[in-house]
Amino acid sequence: MSNKKPTTLVIGAGLIGTSIAMGLVKAGYDVFIDDSDVSANDLASARSQAKKFAGQIVDLVVVATPPSAVAQVIREALNTQPTAVVTDVASVKGSILTALKDLDQEQLSRIVGGHPMAGREVSGAAGAQNNLFVDRSWVVTKLAQTSPSAVDLVQQMISDLGAVPVDRDVDAHDQTVALISHTPQIIASVLAGELVDAKDHEVELAGQGLRDTIRIASSDAKLWSDILSGNAKHVASRISSIATQLTNVAKALESGDQNSISEMLKRGSVGRDRLPGKHGTAAKLDSQIVVRLEDKPGELARLFAAAAAANVNLEDVRIDHSLGRMTGLVELTVAQDKREVLITALSSADFVVVN
Amino acid sequence: MSNKKPTTLVIGAGLIGTSIAMGLVKAGYDVFIDDSDVSANDLASARSQAKKFAGQIVDLVVVATPPSAVAQVIREALNTQPTAVVTDVASVKGSILTALKDLDQEQLSRIVGGHPMAGREVSGAAGAQNNLFVDRSWVVTKLAQTSPSAVDLVQQMISDLGAVPVDRDVDAHDQTVALISHTPQIIASVLAGELVDAKDHEVELAGQGLRDTIRIASSDAKLWSDILSGNAKHVASRISSIATQLTNVAKALESGDQNSISEMLKRGSVGRDRLPGKHGTAAKLDSQIVVRLEDKPGELARLFAAAAAANVNLEDVRIDHSLGRMTGLVELTVAQDKREVLITALSSADFVVVN
Repeated sequence: MSNKKPTTLVIGAGLIGTSIAMGLVKAGYDVFIDDSDVSANDLASARSQAKKFAGQIVDLVVVATPPSAVAQVIREALNTQPTAVVTDVASVKGSILTALKDLDQEQLSRIVGGHPMAGREVSGAAGAQNNLFVDRSWVVTKLAQTSPSAVDLVQQMISDLGAVPVDRDVDAHDQTVALISHTPQIIASVLAGELVDAKDHEVELAGQGLRDTIRIASSDAKLWSDILSGNAKHVASRISSIATQLTNVAKALESGDQNSISEMLKRGSVGRDRLPGKHGTAAKLDSQIVVRLEDKPGELARLFAAAAAANVNLEDVRIDHSLGRMTGLVELTVAQDKREVLITALSSADFVVVN
Repeated sequence: MSNKKPTTLVIGAGLIGTSIAMGLVKAGYDVFIDDSDVSANDLASARSQAKKFAGQIVDLVVVATPPSAVAQVIREALNTQPTAVVTDVASVKGSILTALKDLDQEQLSRIVGGHPMAGREVSGAAGAQNNLFVDRSWVVTKLAQTSPSAVDLVQQMISDLGAVPVDRDVDAHDQTVALISHTPQIIASVLAGELVDAKDHEVELAGQGLRDTIRIASSDAKLWSDILSGNAKHVASRISSIATQLTNVAKALESGDQNSISEMLKRGSVGRDRLPGKHGTAAKLDSQIVVRLEDKPGELARLFAAAAAANVNLEDVRIDHSLGRMTGLVELTVAQDKREVLITALSSADFVVVN
């Protein structure tokens, strides 16, 4: 592999595809972008400076279409691009490979699976950013037939986007996303579904806990139906296990078995503490600092200015204030090793650090 | 009832008790505070300016102890304070009343149940604030025997704390909190418990969706075991229903019934959309605005300053940025009627509003 960057075609001008195009253009790649939605393609091309695709022969194809289309688009790309390595960004890998198992050895040697672990708070090219993948994990799955040079090419692309390539077996990856992503989606959706028939006077009293627990229930039903169906076996197994546990919790409540309830809660707390820092690259200890803001205008802005002046990056911010008033408690999440620096800086700036 | 504020004893110097004491002192009440934990009592008294209790006779007692102690503390207060109205702040009402059903008519006439719907991000007197209840709902439950003047006294106290008294039947209240608070707690805890046996390489890939969904699994197991046991019947019923639904989801996944999966997801989205504005007073439409921040120091501080200058209060802030970098997408939640004002202000300040 020479040092020359591979000419790359990105298929799919959504958030992920456009962000990849933007990042690769910035990294010096010659990039084409293609989407059957003309206006999405126009926007993605304008934002990324990637050229519109018109049948050119490329070295690398990145398939960033909706998941249900990925296998077919990979198949077509392998045919129309006779020497290109073809990778994708779908969040389930096994079902795609199953759909492609009739391919010949030469074509299979050019397939490298990929899954960037990047947030998708928004969809579409408008939300894309060239640094979306910086410091994020990007899972790479290879087949027995995948050629080492194909893997090298995709890993280099991932590194050029600032992300961290992480090798996984196909099945291990799908089991992992069943646990950390697909099962939570179902749990949140089913719980949120309980609100459909709730009375107004009930939902009116809901607070932040419920809001956080069901936040991801707003996810796109079409996209997620595809994703879950593509990982059905692993997800069904987790969901069945949780259903059994919940049945046992209900029994414990009915029988007054407070010990079982307590153990269930403690176990949840232990599990919660296993989460690493935000966005999941290497495990990283975070620390929460709660600051009480006075009821004065501009205090939140002053708080962030103080954190920035102390050169402390905030991993997360949660505001717990009264409706319509910018006052109350603000929870800042920072890396453990920045905790004391930030507390000192905030105290010097006359903020009240609660804990 | 005269306009003179009732002399009030707050029992329990945690976050809620201390915040009540602080708010009542500020509202001109003569307030005593009492906690068997001497250092908590010292801190609460110092922060609130409430006097330490030494057997004085009062007009109103507010019981803010851990839930398992509430019934007994109410019972004692009715005895030692022969004319006082006694209220509490426990999040389950029915089980407390059941424990007090042997009281005589006179004592029952002085009991008013209460449940302030205030966030509890932190615990302890250190996190207390005199405005914790401002604009929050505060459920009031009365018995058949409760005297109207006792209800008036408690409703006046709630109003004096800036909160909004909301009348509810005892059973309706307990059913509501089973739905909006107790069931989500169990769901989050059981889901988080799945991480206990996860491999490091699995949790390393977890992202913000899982983090939000299980955030409340960090709740105190002792406190929550008490709460759940106190509302066992209603909670068990919800949990059983969810267990059944999850079993059906697992079956649908196994049989490839994508239509059922899609319906489940859509129902979740509809349920999610029923949530009102933060902190649940009156239903209130919120709007999310996503801003893309450039990779420059201090942009977050500048963003909040711009919002403050436009006189727009932020209901919530979510930061979706790369680990260790203060750049990326920021989601601001504002009241629907402030959306355009904020977008205009941010655009004028050269921020890129994504959607």
